[in-house]
Amino acid sequence: MLGQLLQPEIKELINARNWSVLKKILIDLHPSEIADIIGDIAENDRAIVFRLLPKELSFSTFEYLDFNVQEQLMKSLGQEEVAAILNEMSPDDRTELLEDLPGPVVKKLIRLLSPEERKIADTLLGYPEDSIGRIMTPDFITIKSNMTASGVLNKVREVGKKVEYIDTLFITDDSGKLMDEITLKDVLLAESDTQVNLLMNKSYVSLLVTDNQEKAVTTFREYDLYVIPVVNNENYLVGIVTADDVIDVIEEETTEDIQKFGGMEALEMPYKSVSVFEMVRKRAGWLILLFLGEMITTYAMGVFENEIAKAVVLALFIPLIISSGGNTGSQAATLTIRSMALGEITLRDWWLIMRREIITGIMLGITLGAIGFFRVAITTTYSNFFGEYWFLIGITVWVTLIGVVLYGTIAGSMLPFILSKLKFDPATSSAPFIATLVDVTGVVIYFSVAKFLLTGTLL
Amino acid sequence: MLGQLLQPEIKELINARNWSVLKKILIDLHPSEIADIIGDIAENDRAIVFRLLPKELSFSTFEYLDFNVQEQLMKSLGQEEVAAILNEMSPDDRTELLEDLPGPVVKKLIRLLSPEERKIADTLLGYPEDSIGRIMTPDFITIKSNMTASGVLNKVREVGKKVEYIDTLFITDDSGKLMDEITLKDVLLAESDTQVNLLMNKSYVSLLVTDNQEKAVTTFREYDLYVIPVVNNENYLVGIVTADDVIDVIEEETTEDIQKFGGMEALEMPYKSVSVFEMVRKRAGWLILLFLGEMITTYAMGVFENEIAKAVVLALFIPLIISSGGNTGSQAATLTIRSMALGEITLRDWWLIMRREIITGIMLGITLGAIGFFRVAITTTYSNFFGEYWFLIGITVWVTLIGVVLYGTIAGSMLPFILSKLKFDPATSSAPFIATLVDVTGVVIYFSVAKFLLTGTLL
Repeated sequence: MLGQLLQPEIKELINARNWSVLKKILIDLHPSEIADIIGDIAENDRAIVFRLLPKELSFSTFEYLDFNVQEQLMKSLGQEEVAAILNEMSPDDRTELLEDLPGPVVKKLIRLLSPEERKIADTLLGYPEDSIGRIMTPDFITIKSNMTASGVLNKVREVGKKVEYIDTLFITDDSGKLMDEITLKDVLLAESDTQVNLLMNKSYVSLLVTDNQEKAVTTFREYDLYVIPVVNNENYLVGIVTADDVIDVIEEETTEDIQKFGGMEALEMPYKSVSVFEMVRKRAGWLILLFLGEMITTYAMGVFENEIAKAVVLALFIPLIISSGGNTGSQAATLTIRSMALGEITLRDWWLIMRREIITGIMLGITLGAIGFFRVAITTTYSNFFGEYWFLIGITVWVTLIGVVLYGTIAGSMLPFILSKLKFDPATSSAPFIATLVDVTGVVIYFSVAKFLLTGTLL
Repeated sequence: MLGQLLQPEIKELINARNWSVLKKILIDLHPSEIADIIGDIAENDRAIVFRLLPKELSFSTFEYLDFNVQEQLMKSLGQEEVAAILNEMSPDDRTELLEDLPGPVVKKLIRLLSPEERKIADTLLGYPEDSIGRIMTPDFITIKSNMTASGVLNKVREVGKKVEYIDTLFITDDSGKLMDEITLKDVLLAESDTQVNLLMNKSYVSLLVTDNQEKAVTTFREYDLYVIPVVNNENYLVGIVTADDVIDVIEEETTEDIQKFGGMEALEMPYKSVSVFEMVRKRAGWLILLFLGEMITTYAMGVFENEIAKAVVLALFIPLIISSGGNTGSQAATLTIRSMALGEITLRDWWLIMRREIITGIMLGITLGAIGFFRVAITTTYSNFFGEYWFLIGITVWVTLIGVVLYGTIAGSMLPFILSKLKFDPATSSAPFIATLVDVTGVVIYFSVAKFLLTGTLL
């Protein structure tokens, strides 16, 4: 924010190579703002500006940089500098950086770590992608249940410097298994000789290190927490996840869902950081698949070529009819996918949703069909465009719309269930995907209804 | 989570009216789990079960209930009980509940509050909807810059019981203006006679009480924080926003965006809580608008009726062509809307995006067009379906696809900018909206290209 206001001034200082003044300005800024500035300036200047920062500030600034800037910067910095940064980074941020780099680079970087940090990095990178192990930090304070409040405070004072988050303390038994958690607040407000025992209430929530990151999101949302302890499957405390990490996970996962729903591969980085070529690649895949799927409409219509030749007027309604199915399908898919992502509905709810969507689909189909019918009727009051069989044409449009819209709501709402059952991401049933599915069927429904209602008259 | 496992057992206890055993089970659960259970049982039983809870637990459970359950429960509880709950609720949760109730009910409820709490509630409800004032809590600890670390700890011990969040302390001057913030950790780790002065670094971030809640989201994301102080425009500290509140805001806002993007009004409550009738209403509005818009395709095609009659084969490609435009438009809109929501791009970036999307659109159009052309060419190797002018038909499809896909990417990426410039929500440019826009233009592009390339041969 502040960074953006200062931008022109800072650009001038960089252009003028006025490093001493720039340094004075930078050291008063928040690391996140410095990171913004470094991300915005020319690649060649980044290392120079980064080196202006005092050590501590450079470490925290590095954690706020975008991945691609981190990567590029590491290439420009000396090996010792890189080693210092990596050793000082908080383990969860370091894991996030490393997991995005190619394997050989990761190996080289891990060798730069101190033996202690290397062990931590290896462990964290050993957890599956998208697991909680990858976003947790192994920095936390453990206490024993027989300590007194003042004993706990002494321990916090002793080890607190090395630990990022100290507002919640975790009680483990002698073997390191998690027993409970209490807040620093509880300890501070208790009499100094109160035993931790008496402050415990055993109503903590924990996550499994191999759980999906989704699970962390739903748990934070459900329990309104700032931190959740992470255990392995023998209940040993191995890390903690904090709310700020989860905000990042939410944003990332939602972005992926939205991009998939828009009918493309997830970009996995900011729009502006993706090259045009990469962008075309990420978008072309689905487009080509959808194009090939939509080709079936050409075959389907080919089957009805004679009918179209006899009654060209029928062709005019095709975009209107198939798009209505696609639109209602898109609505139904959105609702289902989002409710699934929020945990409001689960696989078992499919029948409930199906029933609701059938009723909704019929009502929406009747409404749109009525508009379509009256459009034909009204045109007929002042023109002979639809000819003597205008009534039958209108009815054909109406009946078709009920069928197509109903099909759209069912396809749109059920496809996410089917995908989810088959262990695919429900968001893969994108608006364009549903539309394509419904277009093909819509053409068939339309001409079948037309053949049934119009044979002997228009056909 | 636990709640769901226990469910059948608990249902049995309720059916058996076995309140004493039920009570024993409930008091060991997390308030969020009890809230889940109360939400799931029959409306008539909710008040009975709620009354089983000890006072403290009932207060915290109430805050975790869904709004509609809270509302219904308040109707079943006595006035005194409601008063006790409302007075004990944390002010931000209370505001959220009250702002969803009808005006007269709110007035009645506010009269149940103690004078002190009433003043707080009135103030919070006075802030505009979607402003930070509505999600902040006015509970926080302020300290003075000349206090010592031990003095601060004494103050925290003294007032901490009444304040929810004590992990960050706010330094104000004598008039109450915010000067800085320090963490409880800083204080605890400092020597007991260190002055607060020396712990301050003036690099705090604050929000304005009238700022949009969006702003809170982007600030939390950018700075990785747990809490942000909220000031009025004279810099008086009036409240704090915590990360757990922001997680709720993110989920709500994303849900709204996604639903709008799916082509409907935002539901503003969970799928299952919306009646089918309400659902139809929320969906029909946009559907009807889109339907009316899509009707223009019928007129557009009517203009080319003679061409279609002469060359029915042209009609077969209509769904394929217009859907390709809709699909690329949907991709472009998704990318733009999401990048805007994340603050990755701003209005000023429109020209950058436009340039990228033009290149992308041309490349995608050439690709899809090539597939379309070769489809025609390959069919021609074994059938006479496309007749002697197959080459020209193929070229018409190819050229049209370049035009339609390019138009789709431009419309999809620019519409969010235009809407945003006009102070509408960019997410209003939904996939179905873009598709409709592109369908109409697509038909015109297609037949114009066909007329240009095929007149004298097929036409």
